[in-house]
Amino acid sequence: MQKITVLDTTLRDGAQAEGISFSLEDKLSIISALDALGVDLIEAGNPAANPKDAALFARLRDGAPPKRARIVAFGATRRAGMACADDPGLQALCDCGVRAASIFGKSWDFHAAQVLRVSLDENLAMIGESIAFLASRGLTVYFDAEHFFDGYAANPRYALATLQAAKAAGAAAVILCDTNGGSLPTAVAQITAQVAAEMGGLPVGIHAHNDGGMAAANTLLAVEAGATHVQGTINGLGERCGNANLCTVLPGLRFKMGLDCLMQDAFSALSDTARYISEMCNVALDERSPYVGYSAFAHKGGMHIDGVLKNRASFEHMDPALVGNQRRLLLSEMSGRATLLTRLAAIAPDLAPDAPQVAELIAALKQKEAQGYRYEDAEGSFSLLALELLGRRPRFFEVGDFHVITQQPWNGQSAQAYIKVTVEGRQEITAAEGDGPVAALDGALRKALCVFYPQLARMRLVDFKVRVLDSLGTCSTTRVQMTSTDGQRVWGTVGVSPNIIEASWRALTDAIDFFLACREEEQPH
Amino acid sequence: MQKITVLDTTLRDGAQAEGISFSLEDKLSIISALDALGVDLIEAGNPAANPKDAALFARLRDGAPPKRARIVAFGATRRAGMACADDPGLQALCDCGVRAASIFGKSWDFHAAQVLRVSLDENLAMIGESIAFLASRGLTVYFDAEHFFDGYAANPRYALATLQAAKAAGAAAVILCDTNGGSLPTAVAQITAQVAAEMGGLPVGIHAHNDGGMAAANTLLAVEAGATHVQGTINGLGERCGNANLCTVLPGLRFKMGLDCLMQDAFSALSDTARYISEMCNVALDERSPYVGYSAFAHKGGMHIDGVLKNRASFEHMDPALVGNQRRLLLSEMSGRATLLTRLAAIAPDLAPDAPQVAELIAALKQKEAQGYRYEDAEGSFSLLALELLGRRPRFFEVGDFHVITQQPWNGQSAQAYIKVTVEGRQEITAAEGDGPVAALDGALRKALCVFYPQLARMRLVDFKVRVLDSLGTCSTTRVQMTSTDGQRVWGTVGVSPNIIEASWRALTDAIDFFLACREEEQPH
Repeated sequence: MQKITVLDTTLRDGAQAEGISFSLEDKLSIISALDALGVDLIEAGNPAANPKDAALFARLRDGAPPKRARIVAFGATRRAGMACADDPGLQALCDCGVRAASIFGKSWDFHAAQVLRVSLDENLAMIGESIAFLASRGLTVYFDAEHFFDGYAANPRYALATLQAAKAAGAAAVILCDTNGGSLPTAVAQITAQVAAEMGGLPVGIHAHNDGGMAAANTLLAVEAGATHVQGTINGLGERCGNANLCTVLPGLRFKMGLDCLMQDAFSALSDTARYISEMCNVALDERSPYVGYSAFAHKGGMHIDGVLKNRASFEHMDPALVGNQRRLLLSEMSGRATLLTRLAAIAPDLAPDAPQVAELIAALKQKEAQGYRYEDAEGSFSLLALELLGRRPRFFEVGDFHVITQQPWNGQSAQAYIKVTVEGRQEITAAEGDGPVAALDGALRKALCVFYPQLARMRLVDFKVRVLDSLGTCSTTRVQMTSTDGQRVWGTVGVSPNIIEASWRALTDAIDFFLACREEEQPH
Repeated sequence: MQKITVLDTTLRDGAQAEGISFSLEDKLSIISALDALGVDLIEAGNPAANPKDAALFARLRDGAPPKRARIVAFGATRRAGMACADDPGLQALCDCGVRAASIFGKSWDFHAAQVLRVSLDENLAMIGESIAFLASRGLTVYFDAEHFFDGYAANPRYALATLQAAKAAGAAAVILCDTNGGSLPTAVAQITAQVAAEMGGLPVGIHAHNDGGMAAANTLLAVEAGATHVQGTINGLGERCGNANLCTVLPGLRFKMGLDCLMQDAFSALSDTARYISEMCNVALDERSPYVGYSAFAHKGGMHIDGVLKNRASFEHMDPALVGNQRRLLLSEMSGRATLLTRLAAIAPDLAPDAPQVAELIAALKQKEAQGYRYEDAEGSFSLLALELLGRRPRFFEVGDFHVITQQPWNGQSAQAYIKVTVEGRQEITAAEGDGPVAALDGALRKALCVFYPQLARMRLVDFKVRVLDSLGTCSTTRVQMTSTDGQRVWGTVGVSPNIIEASWRALTDAIDFFLACREEEQPH
């Protein structure tokens, strides 16, 4: 099987997307997720242009490198009229601790003349000398031929000359970039085939943008035409209309074209990875996304549901499990039943699949989902809802009353919470302060409950996410998702309300209830 | 210029999308919007399968037809073993008052045998007789060859025989449907070219689904290969991953391939129509949508902004005005001085580009961005920050003190805010309640300020977004973004704090300050 090299640029080109800004911790998490998928190359940032990227490279060098993937630093060819050794950008690439670099240079004569304002010969020298310089320092160098397709359309001989300069200087691959994203598939295929023939075996890559809505198709067609290196981002994140979406491109290469990319078993994690990285970006995953969206295998039309139940292939282009997704039948009473039964079996193994409580639970879930609840990543809240409907939900505490007060000045402890809880007839009244109202309430509730359940000291929140579901200003419905851990197990809970404190409260009390329910053998003392 | 016939199926195939349900009035509004664009054919629904669709056809017949477009009713070939005159679906097509119908039939032998469970000959008879029947009643008939590409791959001779049966029976066009949406562009192009050659001049159409992320590309390639009729939906709405997005396909046909579609002047309304129909669906428009998204021509990288200011073509694949969109230069840590100066010119036109305050403002922005602020979509907060650094920020009010209290029960008014504000030495103390603490605080602040600035009654919040920036549980830093309007102008503001109420407070007071600063001529009375 032909091997395709995959370079992910979510952290570099993806970070150019409107509204995206990754923290250092976000970046390290994304690198781990990409590494687990088996991406070959991770373009992590530009060490010269951005101090936050420089900090990332330092961190990767000092002990947090990916296990399998290779980190690539991004930069530009040397400045006009400057020696490579004097160029701060090239120097940063050499100093940042990576073994591989992508550098971009101009392949469109118009850009060299109008944007860089250098002669066409100087532009070729900038490309060749920069690559030779980095290669002489031991780096593997990928040449990103910026605006290649527009450049080829305008002046094919010059565009090819830039690639020849890169090849002669020792580039490991030349990447054809559709920087403005407006190229059509037929042109991309024809030009890539011509370049592949000219390059005499040097790997050719494709880097497509989606301004014409063609990025994924252009990528697949370039591979058909001879490219063996593809670049893109998870969920198509990127400036303007985004980059080629690897979650679309990679299943296409693997399952439609039979090519080797990512690790063999990694595709079944693709849907989860897409969702994880979209959460990281705080950008809702487009649920209609090919392959990985929640709706991607959701059937609504009656004839489609009928057909797909007769034979999977009748209305599904592939088995959703291959990409870690699942079929959903929207208008059927069978919708989600199988999943539900699987989850229920863990909570109530004695419940028969045709018990009336199963239908009640399906109805209750639908009602909750209509209110904005999502249980995909809230197994704690799901389990408690199911136990409640079965009449088996244990009650560990009652809250009689609480008040949360927030006021100026904002001094780090500007919120206070007062709370009264009752456990088996014994009452505890306490208070706590915090950075904000949710922190104060969380502090007061735990303080009160730890009197009865000291094991709660082991539980902590590891993630807290807020999403505003509609656009009614400050009266919008808010969904809060919390992830908690006791050091071993991790569980999610969810709360929904127009009041962000109530939504947080619901997620928080579910998190505590679920923790205590999983350890019911530990009685209050 | 070659004319391409456009059939919009937003109301029929688009309505199969998860979460979509149009009212009769919605449908009439969408028909008007499509008619104004110059869509040739509007597939409005299936009069036999859906009573709501039947009501729509009755309404269109009784006096609300589109001005220019032709309404098409959708249905199936006759049932197996039944005479056409007895088939209720075909009868409904004849009776619903339209002059044109699309009917779908099976082109994949596997589907005829396994899903319909009829002989291959009976399937051909069902196609031919149904079309002949409708044509004899004076209808123009389009034949949707369901699963055509999968069928052609499995049994090309039989797939072509279904088209020949449609042609012989008088179909006005045969439409090649990629019903499961998994076909690749090269196959679609090759098969369409073969069909076009076989059909001897009968118009050939393309109806693509997006399960492989190829719907728009498959549509353009089919047209290159000889198709002259395209089907799709606005914003790509449709079952699973959706249909070919006409907002991507039509600008591609017109501006990239130079073909004639829609009305000459209509493309400049395309972005507004996409947004209008997404509102109608209550589905947020994907702002990265090619051509029509808010981010489609938004530049963030400093070099891109520099380039595009030197020459539009350097980083834009087309003029955004052609599709009714516009260029946006985003302010971020990646963007340089050029964007900043463009924005500053609007606030302080007297400021020289090399004034020391410009460097100070850049440093201040970087510091704010490191704290988690983002100004890309917060021009209100940016302007106030710039005015503050220039010593020109007007002060409209001072807040002496406030308290916000939240408590159980959660009854829709479970938060109260008390506030004291001072304007020009006069003090106002008031209070308000709300769904949550931010709503209560917002209410109290406006109530107090409206005493001095009654024009504030015209201002309202239209969007409110919360993003947790790090993962420190309830102590995480929170960024709040608000979008406000006075009915004419729209502006964004931003606030950051570990306390969500403080973050909201900052965004809220900026929103009010910016509103008042823009109307400084209106003095307190």
